[in-house]
Formats: sequence, structure tokens, C-alpha cells
Amino acid sequence: MNDQEYPHTLEFSVRDYECDLQGVVNNANYQHYLEHARHVFLESQGISFSQLHEEGLDLIVARIEIDYKYPLRSHDKFFIKTTLLRQGNVRLVFVQDIFRIPDEKLVLKARVTGAAVRNGKPVFPAELLKKLGLE
Amino acid sequence: MNDQEYPHTLEFSVRDYECDLQGVVNNANYQHYLEHARHVFLESQGISFSQLHEEGLDLIVARIEIDYKYPLRSHDKFFIKTTLLRQGNVRLVFVQDIFRIPDEKLVLKARVTGAAVRNGKPVFPAELLKKLGLE
Amino acid sequence: MNDQEYPHTLEFSVRDYECDLQGVVNNANYQHYLEHARHVFLESQGISFSQLHEEGLDLIVARIEIDYKYPLRSHDKFFIKTTLLRQGNVRLVFVQDIFRIPDEKLVLKARVTGAAVRNGKPVFPAELLKKLGLE
Amino acid sequence: MNDQEYPHTLEFSVRDYECDLQGVVNNANYQHYLEHARHVFLESQGISFSQLHEEGLDLIVARIEIDYKYPLRSHDKFFIKTTLLRQGNVRLVFVQDIFRIPDEKLVLKARVTGAAVRNGKPVFPAELLKKLGLE
Repeated sequence: MNDQEYPHTLEFSVRDYECDLQGVVNNANYQHYLEHARHVFLESQGISFSQLHEEGLDLIVARIEIDYKYPLRSHDKFFIKTTLLRQGNVRLVFVQDIFRIPDEKLVLKARVTGAAVRNGKPVFPAELLKKLGLE
Repeated sequence: MNDQEYPHTLEFSVRDYECDLQGVVNNANYQHYLEHARHVFLESQGISFSQLHEEGLDLIVARIEIDYKYPLRSHDKFFIKTTLLRQGNVRLVFVQDIFRIPDEKLVLKARVTGAAVRNGKPVFPAELLKKLGLE
Repeated sequence: MNDQEYPHTLEFSVRDYECDLQGVVNNANYQHYLEHARHVFLESQGISFSQLHEEGLDLIVARIEIDYKYPLRSHDKFFIKTTLLRQGNVRLVFVQDIFRIPDEKLVLKARVTGAAVRNGKPVFPAELLKKLGLE
Repeated sequence: MNDQEYPHTLEFSVRDYECDLQGVVNNANYQHYLEHARHVFLESQGISFSQLHEEGLDLIVARIEIDYKYPLRSHDKFFIKTTLLRQGNVRLVFVQDIFRIPDEKLVLKARVTGAAVRNGKPVFPAELLKKLGLE
């Protein structure tokens, strides 16, 4: 894993509505956090998820793996570290870890495999890979 | 209120992820329930919210008033009763009440004012009003 | 409205998952934003929503009125201005407005009536009112 | 995979608010669907997720793997098939697949590893395993 090449960090605060009746952030909401961190990362590279959609190119998630290590609760702050790797010709892999602030306790580890599709068909996202330095 | 003219009832079950750390359904989620009931009601009248959007016509909410009377909890079932009224030339008012099953305890009362817009401009939704019998 | 007494402002960014198939923030998600702004405001006054719940006191929303003026979209930033008023003996009214950044276009106006309950019964939240300077 | 031993099927309809600006169900919302199907499955075996929480025992997700095969859209109906396996002494694995109705097109395949914790510590959920016939 070339962890150094595309480091990106985004800070969040837990919002109470994201917690469920167990008093912890609901599992699905972490996926929302991870998506937001990926989109902000892509924007920082000049790539807009919503604009791509309007142009007919959709970035989609093909596979997600999440290991939940420690739950976040009301009032917690945390950051997401995102790294991007290329996998074969058409797949991108986002490696994303969440750490609680300030003790940097590991909250979860995720591996999100994405692909680009146009009209439902996988495409080779040449321009995206160029912007991402992954040619 | 002509409660009899467009009666529509839709049944739901609370899903645990809709409950927050107070152990009750989070306030915002009722608005999701109400939206879903309106869309199913419109579909029952031959009107598809998502298809209208693809055709450039968006139904939007201009105002919402909700009186929360009694909270729903995990395992609760409930139904939403939806009635539609016309207000002036361009506005539609959905009157929506939620009742718990089976005791029909009143959960909330809502009044949702909608409008039709095309490219961000209010339009007179003649065809919709016709389908809804509200000409 | 004594707008000056408890001014509180919180800044947000729209997250793409909060937008629906109309390409704008889904109506219910504004209620999530408003709730988060209220909780952060209360925290700034030394009041923790989740801790109160653990102590058996729940702050609940009894009524919400929202006038939607202009939709937020992907990439938008915005801020919520929150003011708190007392209404009678047991009710608190949060007046909350959302403005887009940087043009300060009005996005919505909300009026949220809250109450305090213990074991489902309305209570006079003397200590809270004291902390809020609303005795 | 002993697919036959604990078969459970639950039917859903896509709700428009679950779709994002790409016009398809947002990835995180499938995790909500899967959670709801697991909870309904557990209830069908006499196990209440929320009641267990009140008794101090929390069922948590330790790992989730989802392969997204085909997106769901507005108006789609679908069903989730849930099977439960035991893994070692303290882990349960839910194998969950989503199929679109009526063509049974595969939407996603998920594998959700759960554990039981009491006060944050893993415990052997003897009584649960007995109810589930997994002793």
C-alpha cells in the first residue's frame, strides 16, 4: 500500500441524529462519513462527483469492506484518512481509516473498491486517473 | 378540510435505525415517512415524482408544519393518512396524520404545502391538478 | 423576537449523500441540520442533550414549522443562526434560519417548539432555563 | 454455506428519499436495509435487538463485506434473503443477498459478522445461540 502518495485527512464531529438506540453511531452512517471523505478528497484533486454525474459519468462503489473496531458516540470528534490505489485497468481502491480525536483510537478500517460507469457500462476513466496521478 | 375526497392510507413499521439515542424515532425521520406516503399517494393517482423530475417538473415542499403528539419506538407499527387540498392557483396542501397501530393513538399531525416548479420557477401544474381531480 | 440575546451560528457543508434524486438536499435533512445546530448551541450553554437523556430528562420537539425558500445543492456551504426564546412555563422556541455561503441567500426559516419531559410527562426545566438565562 | 437452515426473506420498496443525486439508492442505505432485515429475522426467532440493549447486551457488527452488483432505483421493489451461520465461539455471520422484484436480478451480496458485547466486552451469547438453534 503506497500510503504516502495520496494522503487526505478530513475532520468530523458526531451529530446526535447519527446515533441509534444503542447510543452509538449507527453502522450505516460510517458509510456516509466515508463517502463524504472520498468526495472531498476527489474535489481536492479537481474531481466533482456531482458534476461527473451531470456529464453522464458515474463513480460507483463495487465493493466495500469495513472492520468496525470501536464505536463513536455523541460528542466524539474524529478524522478519516483516505488513500487511493489503482487496481487493474478500471478499478480504484480507497483505503480509509477512522480515528477518534484526540486519542487517535482506531474506530474502523475500510477498503472501498470503485469503478466508473457510463450508461451502466464500465469505462476506463482515463482523464480521472490522470488527474489522480494514477496513470 | 374535505377529508373524504382523497383519502389515502399507508402502513409502515418502525425500523431500528430510525430511532435515535433517546430510543424513539428521530424527528426528521417522520418527515421521511410523510414524504414516502405522499409519493405513494401520488403514484396511486398516476403521478410519479421521479419521472416528473426527469421531465423537468419538480414538486417541492414550500412549507411544513408538524405537531408531534406521541413518539414511535422500536417494534411500533403505524399508518399515515394523507388528504390533498388545493390552495390558490399553484399550491397543494397535503394534510397528513400518523396513528400508531393497533390502538390508533395519534402520533403527529402534519400540513405540507407543495408547489410545482420548472427550472426553479413556480408553474401552474394543470395536468397534475387534472389527474388529482383538483381542477 | 429578541434576536440579539442568544445568537448562535454554526457552519456546515452539504454532503452529497444528503441530496436526493432532484439533485437538492432532501427536505428532511434540513431538520437534521437544525437539530444538530440546536444541540451544538445547547452544548455551548453547558447543556448536553445526550447526557440529559442518560439522566432521565429528554428535550423533545413538540412542533416544527419550516418555510423552505431556496434549495441547497452539492458543494454548497451554509450557516444556521439559532436564537432561543421562552414560551410560557414549559416551552422553549428555537428560531432558526439557514443562509447559503457566501451570498447569504435565505435557504429556510424554521420555528421549533421544544419541551422537557421526564418519563413522558412535561416538566418545568428550571435548571435548564437558568443555564440558558431564560428564568 | 448451509443456506437452507435459517432462511428468512423480507420484502421492501425503495423510498425516493433513499435515492441520491445519481438517481439510485445511496450505498449506505443498503446497509440500513440489511440491518432491518437482520432485526426482523432475529425477532422472528424471539430475539429483540432493542430489548437486548435495554438488558445490557448489545449485538454489534464487527465486519461487513458488500458486493454491489446492480443498483436499485425509485419504484423498485426487492427482497432480502438472510441466512445465519456460527463462526467460532462468539461470532455470528449473516449472509444476506438482495434481489430485485420481480425479475430476481441480483442487487448485492453481503456478509455481516456480528458479535455480542456486554459493557463493551465480548461475551458468549449462550441463550441467543440456543434460540437461534446454533448451539
